[in-house]
Amino acid sequence: MSEYTPLSEVGEFGLIRLINEKIELRNSSTIKGIGDDAAVLEPGEKQIVVSSDMLLEGVHFDLTFCPLKHLGYKAVAVNVSDIAAMNAKPTQITVNIALGARYTVEAVEELYEGIRLACENYKVDLVGGDTTSSHGGLVLSVTAIGEVAKGESVLRSGAKVNDLICVTGDLGAAYMGLQILEREKQAFMANPDMQPELEGKQYIVGRQLRPEARMDVVYDLKERGIKPTAMIDISDGLASELFHICKQSGVGATVYKDNLPADEQMLQTALDFNIDPLTCIMNGGEDYELLFTVPLSDHEKLKNHPDISIIGVITEESEGINLATKHGNSYPLKAQGWSHF
Amino acid sequence: MSEYTPLSEVGEFGLIRLINEKIELRNSSTIKGIGDDAAVLEPGEKQIVVSSDMLLEGVHFDLTFCPLKHLGYKAVAVNVSDIAAMNAKPTQITVNIALGARYTVEAVEELYEGIRLACENYKVDLVGGDTTSSHGGLVLSVTAIGEVAKGESVLRSGAKVNDLICVTGDLGAAYMGLQILEREKQAFMANPDMQPELEGKQYIVGRQLRPEARMDVVYDLKERGIKPTAMIDISDGLASELFHICKQSGVGATVYKDNLPADEQMLQTALDFNIDPLTCIMNGGEDYELLFTVPLSDHEKLKNHPDISIIGVITEESEGINLATKHGNSYPLKAQGWSHF
Repeated sequence: MSEYTPLSEVGEFGLIRLINEKIELRNSSTIKGIGDDAAVLEPGEKQIVVSSDMLLEGVHFDLTFCPLKHLGYKAVAVNVSDIAAMNAKPTQITVNIALGARYTVEAVEELYEGIRLACENYKVDLVGGDTTSSHGGLVLSVTAIGEVAKGESVLRSGAKVNDLICVTGDLGAAYMGLQILEREKQAFMANPDMQPELEGKQYIVGRQLRPEARMDVVYDLKERGIKPTAMIDISDGLASELFHICKQSGVGATVYKDNLPADEQMLQTALDFNIDPLTCIMNGGEDYELLFTVPLSDHEKLKNHPDISIIGVITEESEGINLATKHGNSYPLKAQGWSHF
Repeated sequence: MSEYTPLSEVGEFGLIRLINEKIELRNSSTIKGIGDDAAVLEPGEKQIVVSSDMLLEGVHFDLTFCPLKHLGYKAVAVNVSDIAAMNAKPTQITVNIALGARYTVEAVEELYEGIRLACENYKVDLVGGDTTSSHGGLVLSVTAIGEVAKGESVLRSGAKVNDLICVTGDLGAAYMGLQILEREKQAFMANPDMQPELEGKQYIVGRQLRPEARMDVVYDLKERGIKPTAMIDISDGLASELFHICKQSGVGATVYKDNLPADEQMLQTALDFNIDPLTCIMNGGEDYELLFTVPLSDHEKLKNHPDISIIGVITEESEGINLATKHGNSYPLKAQGWSHF
């Protein structure tokens, strides 16, 4: 007898009850959460920010190597990351999920365990959503809502000539983590007795499976009295995001290759895979770090920050977007990003 | 040569540009719409309501008979319907879509034409979302945001003993419309030369393909000085929604069979299909009419309303939820709803 419970045994309402009874509310702006036609929020004098993202099985994640708990966490984190990139504080999320009949109640509970853990870490309230069936794979659609004081939100369009270009954490690791996971999947499919070889790759694999939104940096910048002039989160890769900021701000940029932050494990793995580490850093994507610009006068407040790298400077639009090497050479950058279709 | 443009030809950014350049903003609370990490809203002193729904090809719609424009319209309307059911005014939506490679640019534009038309009719701003690829069918996930003055939102939980139970429009037609569409699909699949026979069925087919959210009733009730004590929109069927109100309000209900509003075309089609019209009315679903309760003292303000039927009365919880016939008989109702799994 299976220890798992088919969804059909609890039905839609039973499943919703199971999910709802474990939800806690943490924000005073949440007046009414799940359980009515809509949630009711009362943000007071603040502005509201709203962001929405969709993740599909086989497109954005592979359940062969992505545990459902991590997936739930990641679905929330990537939306919170968009709220962070607005310089706002996340407060509520809604989660829509579509499930195939092969899912069990236990699988859905594992997914929501990750969602709940992310809600706890980012202090957001799950206030609504839709649970439905799918004939195909799992689909997750999350909408995040945040609050920001009037005049404090940071758009992509505010970068000014001579601003410093900064990035948090390190880049390219999530992409190399995915290469490791896909290699191990191939090995497992060729020989199911094979144990995955993740020894020494935990950091980069973790970056892929369980990214964090950099809310810590948003709070930290506020404490240091720094308000970025422009900000974006890195989901498609540094180059692509830098192009967004430059285009929307009407500026150019020079990025110094030697200042780009990279983790040792990522660099080593890129070499093993014969992939140019610079490609991982510039176009890897899914790092969910923050790319932002600050006035030159904030240099003192930021230098020596253990988790923020100053990677370049904003230039006149006519100069274009360039990568400078230590030998004084400069190459125009291309926004590669990902082609979905 | 095909007159249609494959998605690969314009790419993700090209597609987003195509969609965005036709978007108009209508609400002063929309500070920043599409084009950044998140939208920025400023609702002032009001409370915010948020609702989210997901529609999947093959589960919630069938593109054989549902034109993409209607689908886009419906995806917005069903979410606006949830906002209406809170007694709120819809102001913004975000739309996430996942598309298979077989979709063309023209198909996506048709879908967004429906979305835009709904935005225009309901006066809402499209402020964000995610466009991604799908290996399976089309997935649409919409989040709607609305505003309501403090103290004016109507929950499911406020129904009181002796309140009148009211419903807008007529019920069961969307379900019978679906039966017609599925019959014609079968006929078409058996013989592709067959023309669909929709003569005399336009009303019920329209109810299925292009439902309207009853914002008109929300505004009308406000004008008449009526604030419902409880309200819900009818997506799963009258019986199921009545159970929600009764359970959350801690009350019972008696519904008078003879007062249930039905359209003549629905009744005739149900007879043709040998389906009990009462089943269509009570459990049909997808009508997106409003079910609400008002104090008995509002009877004068509501009677003879051309589009609102008083269908019953709220009773003590111990009396249960019953259907009364004209011969004085009474039967306990069952919430049937739909089993997704």
